[in-house]
Formats: sequence, structure tokens, C-alpha cells
Amino acid sequence: MDKKVSIFGFAGSLRKGSYNKAILRAAVELVPKEAELETFELEGIPPFKQDLENDPPERVKEFKKKIKAADAILIASPEANYTIPGVLKNAMEWASRPYGDNAFDGKPVAVMGASIGMLGAARAQYHLRQSFV
Amino acid sequence: MDKKVSIFGFAGSLRKGSYNKAILRAAVELVPKEAELETFELEGIPPFKQDLENDPPERVKEFKKKIKAADAILIASPEANYTIPGVLKNAMEWASRPYGDNAFDGKPVAVMGASIGMLGAARAQYHLRQSFV
Repeated sequence: MDKKVSIFGFAGSLRKGSYNKAILRAAVELVPKEAELETFELEGIPPFKQDLENDPPERVKEFKKKIKAADAILIASPEANYTIPGVLKNAMEWASRPYGDNAFDGKPVAVMGASIGMLGAARAQYHLRQSFV
Repeated sequence: MDKKVSIFGFAGSLRKGSYNKAILRAAVELVPKEAELETFELEGIPPFKQDLENDPPERVKEFKKKIKAADAILIASPEANYTIPGVLKNAMEWASRPYGDNAFDGKPVAVMGASIGMLGAARAQYHLRQSFV
């Protein structure tokens, strides 16, 4: 039997009742049997400090290691002030540094978003795409 | 004598040798005599958690209070992955919440950016403007 496609997913929110954490949980239930989806909480990822990028805090090391080990990345992101939340942006900065050690390099990334408003996450997703290009 | 125009400034970086902290220090020296510029370090502002928005951590309360008290805001922002740094985005989320208590409401905001690359901060500034509109 072939190895399952490993997907690593996280939500760009720390809120307990986050809709985006909820759709990520739903995705875990719905993932096809050829794949497996492991999720991660951004809780504990501190504000990015470039002075520490070569030897980041443990939680960041764990985050980067899981991204690198995965075949694909799934991000559930709310929108904050018309763009992606700082919490998510912050985690992406840790993961994409230092220069030359971008954990996202070559990874397919899928983005989904839940919101209680119309168009709630559309602009956030657009900005997220800009950051990944 | 008229009251001086109070400007509150901060840089979107925690890095010790941050160019943007440096240009903010330069701005303190260069501010016209009709104005005064008080600066603030984003160090200590934790990742945004909406569950806490109605009673945020002390450092956030202090940040919001200083924004509200100022006549104008000056932000020195580097660029990270073609947009504004998570650290800055995060601080803006705390300051603009909860709904109905946006500290930036009605404040003029000026943005400047220093970078070692060409066009280094142009896109970050554009995204920042989008978030403030």
C-alpha cells in the first residue's frame, strides 16, 4: 500500500471558539482515506524576533519541523482588518526564516476561511497568496 | 503658547538592530518644535487572542491608551514576505478591538519604512494602508 499523503494544517486564530479551528476539525473528519491531516495550534508561538531566527523557541522549531515533514499545508484563516491575522502572519515569518531555510519551500499550500460576514475571508486569502508567491 | 501636537510612534519590529527603530529614533530628533514624538516598543505585546479583547493584558492597555491620547500616529514598518510584519499586524489587532473601541478611530496615521533592499517597504506600506481604510 502506498504511503498516505501527509497534510499539516493550522488555523490563524487563537480564539477558543474559532470558526477556523472548527472548519479545520471538520477537515480532519472529511479528509480522503489516501491522506492524513495533522493539526497544530499556534498558541505558544511568540512574536517574531529576528535576533532569534537561527535558534528559535522550541514551539517554533516543532512548527517548522512539522511543516517540512508534510507533503502539503492547509491553512484555515480568518480575516482581520481586511487582511490575514497577525498571529498567522507571525507564525509564517518564523517558519519562513532564516533566509535559506524557508520551511514552506516547494510545499503546496491550500487556504480556506470561515467567517460570519459575507466576503469575510476573501481579502485575507488574497493577501496570503501574495505572501506565498 | 499653544499645546504641542502629540505624535505617538512605534516600529513594527522587535529586532535589536532594527532599521525601523533607528529611523524612529531619527524622527524623534527631527520632529518640529510644534510637535512632540513619544515612542513605544511592541516588545511584550502578546499574540492576539480575541477571548481577551475586552480585558487585554496590561501592555496592550498601555498601548491603546497612548494611541488614544495622541493627536497622530507614526508607524515605522519593515516588510516581511511582501507585506507588514506579524508583530505589527498583531499590535494593530489588539489596538483596533473590541468592535466599537478602535483606538485608531479618526487618528491620522503616517507610515515610513526603512529597508536594505530596493522597494523594500513599498508593498508593506500599501497593505498597511488597506488595513487602515
